[in-house]
Amino acid sequence: MNTIFERHSYRGKYLPEPVPRADLTRIMEAGLAAPSGCNKQTTALIGVDDPAMLSEIYAIMGQPFCATAPAVICVLTKRVVAYKDGWGNERCYGVQDYSAAIENMLLEIVALGYQSCWIEGHVTDADEQGKRIAALLGVPEEYALICVLPVGKAAEPVKLVRKRPFADRAWFNGFGKD
Amino acid sequence: MNTIFERHSYRGKYLPEPVPRADLTRIMEAGLAAPSGCNKQTTALIGVDDPAMLSEIYAIMGQPFCATAPAVICVLTKRVVAYKDGWGNERCYGVQDYSAAIENMLLEIVALGYQSCWIEGHVTDADEQGKRIAALLGVPEEYALICVLPVGKAAEPVKLVRKRPFADRAWFNGFGKD
Repeated sequence: MNTIFERHSYRGKYLPEPVPRADLTRIMEAGLAAPSGCNKQTTALIGVDDPAMLSEIYAIMGQPFCATAPAVICVLTKRVVAYKDGWGNERCYGVQDYSAAIENMLLEIVALGYQSCWIEGHVTDADEQGKRIAALLGVPEEYALICVLPVGKAAEPVKLVRKRPFADRAWFNGFGKD
Repeated sequence: MNTIFERHSYRGKYLPEPVPRADLTRIMEAGLAAPSGCNKQTTALIGVDDPAMLSEIYAIMGQPFCATAPAVICVLTKRVVAYKDGWGNERCYGVQDYSAAIENMLLEIVALGYQSCWIEGHVTDADEQGKRIAALLGVPEEYALICVLPVGKAAEPVKLVRKRPFADRAWFNGFGKD
């Protein structure tokens, strides 16, 4: 599972080389293989590799840093109640479900030699880019489009972010314990 | 990345064999290697392999199906604002952050020959098992304990859940399109 440690958020330019449909399919299959709360499978995906449609999506997103990517995967979520707890509260796990699916896809993307970046911030801001992209793709009302994952080969070096050390975030048998 | 397709939620009994600290550490490192919104690193982890502490945790959880697991990883999240959007709304990505971390850990667990299951439902129900486990582990107020991941070798066969076919959940260049 070295891929887990090799994955980094890529914000550089992409090579124009198209992503074969077989690779895009494999990445999306990896997303759908993620677990979901009570197996409700609330996540759905739309791969986009049509250049005209990509241009429209990037226009809605205001020409984002990923605008050179030759493909994207749009992530959809459906609000479904997983179960009611003993106090009558409806428990929904859509965010958890799509996040696990996105992480699987990011790993499969890297495993296949591509780069990506989880783009959810801004897509779901109050100007509702996600809603406009969903309309373009004919997504029904019961789904929300919450994330755009670019897919393509990196044209620039991958930059690493600094992370806090293990001992600041992980312990054994008690908070702050070695 | 076959591990992605080999991971299944395991609800059977575990062998009593302890999990070496090196493996537990590697699994937790995989969790911390997940991306986080604006790199806020909102997720923290406590590995528990002390038998007395495990018994107390399983007692709080009402002797769950994982009560034979020789180790668990407790997942903590801190509410941190990632950014304010252009309309003044605070955007938090804690759920996404810990979900990506959990998925990484589930994959690393399977890669190392162990089994697990994402236990968040019930831990976060209104009876607040998570809060009581957090108190046991000395977790400060600013963190919420939202998930318990058992880790151990399976004593029973892994059962698969049925998932809807690809064509029901994934499309190309438009909703419902091949």
